Amino acid sequence: MDTLPGPIDPPARLLMGPGPISAYPSVLQALSAPLVGQYDPFMTATMAETQELYRGVFGTANEATLLVDGTARAGIEAALVSLIRPGDRVLVPIFGRFGHLLAEIAERALAEVHRIEVPWGQVFPVSVVREAITRVRPDVLALVQGDTSTTMNQPLAEIGEICREHGVLFYSDVTASLGGNEFEMDGWGVDAATAGLQKCLGGPSGSAPLCLSDRAVERVRSRARVEAGIREAGDADAADFIRSNYFDLAMILDYWGPRRLNHHTEATSMLYAARECARVLLLEGRAAVIRRHRRNGAAMLAGVVELGLSVFGDVAHKMNNVVAVEIPEGIPGEPVRAALLADFGIEIGTSFGPLHGRVWRIGTMGYNARREAVLRTLAALEEVLRRFGASVPAGGGVEAAEGVYAA
Amino acid sequence: MDTLPGPIDPPARLLMGPGPISAYPSVLQALSAPLVGQYDPFMTATMAETQELYRGVFGTANEATLLVDGTARAGIEAALVSLIRPGDRVLVPIFGRFGHLLAEIAERALAEVHRIEVPWGQVFPVSVVREAITRVRPDVLALVQGDTSTTMNQPLAEIGEICREHGVLFYSDVTASLGGNEFEMDGWGVDAATAGLQKCLGGPSGSAPLCLSDRAVERVRSRARVEAGIREAGDADAADFIRSNYFDLAMILDYWGPRRLNHHTEATSMLYAARECARVLLLEGRAAVIRRHRRNGAAMLAGVVELGLSVFGDVAHKMNNVVAVEIPEGIPGEPVRAALLADFGIEIGTSFGPLHGRVWRIGTMGYNARREAVLRTLAALEEVLRRFGASVPAGGGVEAAEGVYAA
Repeated sequence: MDTLPGPIDPPARLLMGPGPISAYPSVLQALSAPLVGQYDPFMTATMAETQELYRGVFGTANEATLLVDGTARAGIEAALVSLIRPGDRVLVPIFGRFGHLLAEIAERALAEVHRIEVPWGQVFPVSVVREAITRVRPDVLALVQGDTSTTMNQPLAEIGEICREHGVLFYSDVTASLGGNEFEMDGWGVDAATAGLQKCLGGPSGSAPLCLSDRAVERVRSRARVEAGIREAGDADAADFIRSNYFDLAMILDYWGPRRLNHHTEATSMLYAARECARVLLLEGRAAVIRRHRRNGAAMLAGVVELGLSVFGDVAHKMNNVVAVEIPEGIPGEPVRAALLADFGIEIGTSFGPLHGRVWRIGTMGYNARREAVLRTLAALEEVLRRFGASVPAGGGVEAAEGVYAA
Repeated sequence: MDTLPGPIDPPARLLMGPGPISAYPSVLQALSAPLVGQYDPFMTATMAETQELYRGVFGTANEATLLVDGTARAGIEAALVSLIRPGDRVLVPIFGRFGHLLAEIAERALAEVHRIEVPWGQVFPVSVVREAITRVRPDVLALVQGDTSTTMNQPLAEIGEICREHGVLFYSDVTASLGGNEFEMDGWGVDAATAGLQKCLGGPSGSAPLCLSDRAVERVRSRARVEAGIREAGDADAADFIRSNYFDLAMILDYWGPRRLNHHTEATSMLYAARECARVLLLEGRAAVIRRHRRNGAAMLAGVVELGLSVFGDVAHKMNNVVAVEIPEGIPGEPVRAALLADFGIEIGTSFGPLHGRVWRIGTMGYNARREAVLRTLAALEEVLRRFGASVPAGGGVEAAEGVYAA
């Protein structure tokens, strides 16, 4: 490097894609708070406080509520490799990219993976999940709640009971949905759930809230092995140990629990951020935040429809916080996104796999689930669509959104 | 939670333990910079820039220089599970806690692990490592550079050549040492190295700089498997795939490389922090930063000796950035640490395993490798030691340190 760059100085962006999204200002502030030591009384108190805050976010009384130090995907892998014993049967209903990811991770954990699929843009009827559970008799059901790749929100409320009837551990990836859509860890009988900060929780990627039921903890504990170097007489040393050290939830539970077993060095700044994400959510109220996502999602939906865009997928099962719209015939998808970014500072998303180049994905989540962000996006989108030759009603998108806010 | 807590408001701490330590103020500032999208041109440029900065930190021209999203331990696991094929022979020379950790992680990756050990407080003579390599004929040598549990700094300069002669991949964990002690990735023939921000780099835990030689990249690439859900025709799908998805360096290389394969969502705030850690280091100059660590480490050493404390281990092989001192007979170790924290806002460290309760560990690293931090710590330590009944020369520690600075 011939000359060193200056301090980081990002351009102003309004992130209206499927996530990551712009963080709450107070979350950015929390990130720059001074560091404390790993076992400072303030640190352990902050960890305990953050656990309690996330119990509120997940809707749970589970003691085993904590953060995994990594992105949302780290949380998924921690849950799956800790729950799945090699050879376990794992059922993965797939309705988008992230279902494939769960199957992939389960496979790498040496599970016998059974997949069922619906076309992208749909969710599974409960009866189909029930039938598959009865047929496969899995040890673990791994099911995404909200899959941003399709925007669909899988109904989960009745799945937990089916899993309990059949002795199945029920894991759900709620990264894209938590905080913006209804989710009840305890009420729905979910055994393990993991999330990330960069969607409806309104923080940066890099910390993964995770929650385990007592049944899930029991499975994890049965595989406990305290690592050599800090293992003491009488410490757990299961033959069937978890194949990852970093994602060994048995040790991570003891790091967050009263034993304070030395495992990793907690990522303090990300802990501060995660704490603030949960704090602002609970300050506004969990139900109120979900209502805000529903309202702003509905406004964005009305706006894009009024701009003549066709919505992808089963709208009745869409997440509140993201909508996918078909890229109109004759309009170039990527240049539109590039113009929105370059000329209006607004980012919207592209998509993966079968939807790549077919849809844009527009998010309204976390801090950006707010009127000004929605209206600004609709006005800019109208402008850019017109520039590329689309026939769009002047002010139509904004007006339709305003109609929703007025209702 | 009956009442919600307020915004995060940590107490002022001077972190003089073995890490984590107080971050550079500009690193804390960088953490709160606004977020941008995952594929924003600014984001990908920042990722590329950060890679180049870390080439400067590691002393390498390796293209494969990047960050793993997690703590230092995540970097270790990513390197080891990506390099080690099940059944591979891995040689781990152990001279402290973190050697045990490398062996543990290699074991979980299903390696055939061969350990050699020296007593805590010593390092390995090169001849011993050479003999073990010749005898074991390992596929991978996994060797810590600086082990904070003992403060020892293993000489590595001649190890790379021995590894090359014997076709061994040479991995080193440089978490505790990088930036405060000499390290030459290319000059010493190291094939893989991983670090963390929370030691001499002066940042928060939560991002793990990682560097791979071409030989290491070749091994990783031979095991590539692009995950289902985004795999396209012709994509790699090795039978001998890496057993972790999150730590699959073949995919992570393609995320950081020109292909920009979608893997995790990069932890943007931690990327900003990691970039600033490297930037401030290179701005001061790599050699100058190491000299600063040597000087401040020497001042602290002189100070604690003058306070009558016995230094643990082979001082000739001590890292610049941390010293372990025996807790004097009759002085209670934990109450001293608690008093330093409560009354002076200063944290020093305890230790693990055989040294637990026997030594304190005092660090001088990153931002805190500076005169004022050293003098403040020595003055406070003198005060607290006296309070607990030790006979300490008034002003002796500070004076001895000043002698080093004056020299």
